[in-house]
Amino acid sequence: MRYKITIEYDGTNYKGWQSQDGLPTVQGAIESAVFAFCQEKTEVYGSGRTDAGVHALGMTAHMDIQKETDTETIKMALNAHLREEAIVILSVEKTADEFHARFDAKQRYYLYRILNRATPPALDVDRVWWVPQKLDIEKMRAGAKHLIGQHDFSSFRAAECQAQSPIRTVDEITFEKQGNEIWMRCQARSFLHHQIRNFIGSLVEVGRGKEEPIWIKEILEKKDRTTAGPTAPACGLYFEKVEY
Amino acid sequence: MRYKITIEYDGTNYKGWQSQDGLPTVQGAIESAVFAFCQEKTEVYGSGRTDAGVHALGMTAHMDIQKETDTETIKMALNAHLREEAIVILSVEKTADEFHARFDAKQRYYLYRILNRATPPALDVDRVWWVPQKLDIEKMRAGAKHLIGQHDFSSFRAAECQAQSPIRTVDEITFEKQGNEIWMRCQARSFLHHQIRNFIGSLVEVGRGKEEPIWIKEILEKKDRTTAGPTAPACGLYFEKVEY
Repeated sequence: MRYKITIEYDGTNYKGWQSQDGLPTVQGAIESAVFAFCQEKTEVYGSGRTDAGVHALGMTAHMDIQKETDTETIKMALNAHLREEAIVILSVEKTADEFHARFDAKQRYYLYRILNRATPPALDVDRVWWVPQKLDIEKMRAGAKHLIGQHDFSSFRAAECQAQSPIRTVDEITFEKQGNEIWMRCQARSFLHHQIRNFIGSLVEVGRGKEEPIWIKEILEKKDRTTAGPTAPACGLYFEKVEY
Repeated sequence: MRYKITIEYDGTNYKGWQSQDGLPTVQGAIESAVFAFCQEKTEVYGSGRTDAGVHALGMTAHMDIQKETDTETIKMALNAHLREEAIVILSVEKTADEFHARFDAKQRYYLYRILNRATPPALDVDRVWWVPQKLDIEKMRAGAKHLIGQHDFSSFRAAECQAQSPIRTVDEITFEKQGNEIWMRCQARSFLHHQIRNFIGSLVEVGRGKEEPIWIKEILEKKDRTTAGPTAPACGLYFEKVEY
């Protein structure tokens, strides 16, 4: 029987989603919990692979479990086995046998939180990127407009990116003020490695007045990672949800 | 010279605001930072004394510093010395010599965050009180109405409370949905020890249907702590701001 699970996690103390021998990962922790529950060695396929330090509000994954059971029992049992982890299974649903959390995803949603004030966070350490310079949200919006649509995103792609093509379609980028924070949301069917953190790194250069919004268009057209801004820290990024 | 400071802190690893010999406290940490900055043993008077585990978004305090300096230098220096602490000085202002952070407070504002969903938090551990039973926010509002105004709050006062009188005037209580959370805000000139956590403890009994809203009026009139609900956990409570 195939199940779709939705997961919240604090990525701070994990080496990312993907299992790596001997290292703490989100996938590895959930697979261990599944084994503790039903003594089955199951692969938990995530809809995306978040980097070390990136959080999730609603990561989805699928897995196959042979044991006769029900969704509520799986949820309670996995959460009991995950008690010492910073991972919570929000929901478990039965799905079709051919459902694939990664390949069937139609739209992925990410959130990036910037704390924009003179002083660092006391409460939201590891939850936001602290940018002390005053950011102009209108300029960031204007810069982000150039990223919407289908483009070759080589300038915003990590050197280690394993995707075959640098072409992606970004459907929406929004900016919202939340008290002292700026929340950027970005949605696309799929993303290149570090794409959103690289967007944010360059958009912050625009927001703090070092570059003009048109600079985003210029670096996009250069298709050269070295022309763009730095990669923003992982701790501000949240995998928000997936649409199937 | 007297200064008013505004402070954000994560209360999780402190034994509360007030200095206690050999224990980590917010007041103690700030006084150590002041001493490291100017070698003066200064008492930092808070506008309130938060319990162990209670957070602050905008606690205020006053202190006297003899050293010739300016507010920006004090802020930067204290934050540098507080780097290893979960405490940040948000602002430093010069005030009149007779200003008193505690006695001059006209209104204190607290926020209480309840995570109301079936599964525990992965990201907001120590930041919210997790209540898995579905809460009826309208019933909580109706119950809270009985707490508004001047009353003898003996039923909502900790046994250790040192206030001379159990009479206080609660000016406003509001409830707001924030995604899966319920945010309760409460304002008054001053509060008794545990007053807000005791309000929440009883209002959650109403919200989950164990008691009716009128029960809040009944226990208030009994002036007996043992008739009310339990004390809600410290981790959901935030000292939000003070008006002078």
